[in-house]
Amino acid sequence: MKELVLQLNDKSPKYKQIYEHVRSLIEEGLLLKDTKLPSIRQLAIILHVSRNTTLIAYEQLVAEGYIRSEEKKGYFVEVYEPMDLQQSLRIENHLPSSETSIKVNFRAGTIDQQAFPLKAWRKCSNDVLKEDMIYCYGDNQGDPLLRSQLSSYLLQSRGIQTTPEQIIIGSSTQQLLMHLSLFLQKDFSSIAVENPGYDGARVVFQLHDYHLHPIEVGSKGLSLKQLERTDSKLVYITPSHQFPTGVTMPVPERQQLLKWAEAQNGFIIEDDYDSEFRYKQQPIPALVSLQPGARVIYLGTFSKAFIPSIRLSYMVLPSILIKPYVKQFSGLEQGTSSIHQRTMARFMEQGFWNSHIRKMRTTYKRKMHTLVTCLQNTFGEKIEIIGSQSGLYVLIRFRGSTKEEQLIQQALSHGVKVYPTSNYFVTNEQRTILKLGFSNLSIEQIQLGVQLLKQAWRF
Amino acid sequence: MKELVLQLNDKSPKYKQIYEHVRSLIEEGLLLKDTKLPSIRQLAIILHVSRNTTLIAYEQLVAEGYIRSEEKKGYFVEVYEPMDLQQSLRIENHLPSSETSIKVNFRAGTIDQQAFPLKAWRKCSNDVLKEDMIYCYGDNQGDPLLRSQLSSYLLQSRGIQTTPEQIIIGSSTQQLLMHLSLFLQKDFSSIAVENPGYDGARVVFQLHDYHLHPIEVGSKGLSLKQLERTDSKLVYITPSHQFPTGVTMPVPERQQLLKWAEAQNGFIIEDDYDSEFRYKQQPIPALVSLQPGARVIYLGTFSKAFIPSIRLSYMVLPSILIKPYVKQFSGLEQGTSSIHQRTMARFMEQGFWNSHIRKMRTTYKRKMHTLVTCLQNTFGEKIEIIGSQSGLYVLIRFRGSTKEEQLIQQALSHGVKVYPTSNYFVTNEQRTILKLGFSNLSIEQIQLGVQLLKQAWRF
Repeated sequence: MKELVLQLNDKSPKYKQIYEHVRSLIEEGLLLKDTKLPSIRQLAIILHVSRNTTLIAYEQLVAEGYIRSEEKKGYFVEVYEPMDLQQSLRIENHLPSSETSIKVNFRAGTIDQQAFPLKAWRKCSNDVLKEDMIYCYGDNQGDPLLRSQLSSYLLQSRGIQTTPEQIIIGSSTQQLLMHLSLFLQKDFSSIAVENPGYDGARVVFQLHDYHLHPIEVGSKGLSLKQLERTDSKLVYITPSHQFPTGVTMPVPERQQLLKWAEAQNGFIIEDDYDSEFRYKQQPIPALVSLQPGARVIYLGTFSKAFIPSIRLSYMVLPSILIKPYVKQFSGLEQGTSSIHQRTMARFMEQGFWNSHIRKMRTTYKRKMHTLVTCLQNTFGEKIEIIGSQSGLYVLIRFRGSTKEEQLIQQALSHGVKVYPTSNYFVTNEQRTILKLGFSNLSIEQIQLGVQLLKQAWRF
Repeated sequence: MKELVLQLNDKSPKYKQIYEHVRSLIEEGLLLKDTKLPSIRQLAIILHVSRNTTLIAYEQLVAEGYIRSEEKKGYFVEVYEPMDLQQSLRIENHLPSSETSIKVNFRAGTIDQQAFPLKAWRKCSNDVLKEDMIYCYGDNQGDPLLRSQLSSYLLQSRGIQTTPEQIIIGSSTQQLLMHLSLFLQKDFSSIAVENPGYDGARVVFQLHDYHLHPIEVGSKGLSLKQLERTDSKLVYITPSHQFPTGVTMPVPERQQLLKWAEAQNGFIIEDDYDSEFRYKQQPIPALVSLQPGARVIYLGTFSKAFIPSIRLSYMVLPSILIKPYVKQFSGLEQGTSSIHQRTMARFMEQGFWNSHIRKMRTTYKRKMHTLVTCLQNTFGEKIEIIGSQSGLYVLIRFRGSTKEEQLIQQALSHGVKVYPTSNYFVTNEQRTILKLGFSNLSIEQIQLGVQLLKQAWRF
């Protein structure tokens, strides 16, 4: 424990000095995993500081995963993992962390950092900080200026005719689904969902005790035949870029689905989570735009096309639902930062949003093309590439019998991180489909990644 | 409609020129209330622009309340009200808006704009925008750095011994109560609440079908006798500064309440919403800090002591609840901006938070003193002032028989806005108590406000 007896100076807070010292010992490998640290009391005596000071230092180290606390035993060193790896592990699927160095991480749900319009965003954000509205509680439904901008944007980009009154701002798709689940609960007790489909939506419906009807996804999207055989009057669907298969539901099926909702007096929840990125044709109009008064609740998000950290999403309610929805939640404050909402409104108003989307579409199109070409050239008939026309990832289906987990481990051992898809399936069948995202990788990294996968998989 | 035929130039977007032109006509009183505007189609023809352009301009005007749209009839001019008045009307109680000019608005829940540390916050925020974490989804429980800062702060300021693992970040007290309602639903079906008490909490419990037991608030806070007579095992309470009466629950009653929770195997939800502002004594330690392992869920917020627009609150779970809570919500993303979370962590780390709180306490203490002295000198025995030792508002109880609504209208007609309290009561008894907040008023405005109230009420 000799190293811990550091010299405290008066320049920075004492807890911070202790924290930084211990952290650097761990990072440099001088304190090994499972080493017991001096107790809070011991360390306080050694360093002539208060117990609070040592407690705070240790707590910060625990929070960051450098050390762990075991009840009645004390504090112990944890294995050190670089931060971005930790992050990625936390986000997707909690894979074992045996790998020591990741060269290429095909993580989906990331953002191209190089292309992010940081300057314009910072400018808008600093301008908004001068506005009086930051000192107030915001409008329950969301910033009127943002809702107004969104209604213009949705008309231009998705053909959706809506008014700002129909738009509800939320912090995420999941948060909006939480409210919808409460709202629809009195009339509906079950919901049909795509299989495979977005696990994050299923979680919310299950938290609210909905019975789930998993419906198969085929080449034309969700199977309408299967849907009609259930007694569900509610369906959650990603028709424009099915998650995760990337399938687009054709217009005749969309019309049939709209008729189904009308006949059932039910509702379709259309999640249009990454409508912005379609590379080979014009974007297909949203389901909600096909028919005036359609029984569709439309969801969109800024998490994929912009950044997830501002937590900004929105939904468009059909006009028959607005009054009852607003009434039910009239006592509930808006939970999304009004600073970010107004910043996004200014960002859109000044044209930054449209040029950002145009730029990202070109950037991501090039990356998608590179990834698909490399995969085809390298693996040919041995794999099937799914969903290459849109979105920020592809799925690859393997023709052989190797299991998902084994392929992931083989890739990992060559420094490449690829992701499973089994978590998107409700039912537990045997299939081997992996997910490769590319949004935050450079063209060179994508090429290197596929090369390494070739060495890893050797088939 | 002659004025509408404006000359469009090429400098700014066309919809914006139309929007600004119509807006200024309304603001200047040139277009009167209920005037019918040209239809979207007509205006598009007149101005040689697309229908989308005119639609967008009109929609923005609708969103901001300048015009209204009537189905199948067209667009009509609405009465113009200055923005900050609109805001205040929207936030509290939807009073009739007949008043033309408010000179002094005793609105609670506002922030002293003069004293806000805008520079320091902007600096921290701009630094955070350089960090990689803004491109990722954040930790489900909340930013580890913020949770670590909060655990130190709660120890210093409220005597709460906690670890970052016990802290859950949320966007507001209501949002955290939404999660808690779902979480506790399987074990509890009713909850005791203070009467009068925070209506925003009741709303959430009712949305989740809890049966409410309203419990009277006396000079020692919530009546424990009444609580013990219910079959509820769950109580929501504001013991340090009861909302809205300002009563502090004494230590013996706190200990009795803790024993009650233990005996019932129940839980106390302690909402410590404005613990930062206590003027006459040291802050009283939080309920949760009185006993290790107390069956208390502790809630705090940055909305009152900082600003509501960043939407940042937190709760501390007792250790027995952490694992099941984290498990139940493991599939749910954090809904609070990770940019704001990290900015607040840096703001606290660099000492700005502590100095902000110290400064605000002095500022608000002076304002509270001014308000109370003016009210006493002006109205003497005719009113009773409640809750002047802490918080950002006082209640005044009238000894006469005039009704709440009448007093509010009399004040309004003299340009002063004061607020009702009947919405905080579950039961519908006759009482006359008004609420006067002062946080965003200057000393001079407070003095003027009381003078005007004297003229208004004349008793």
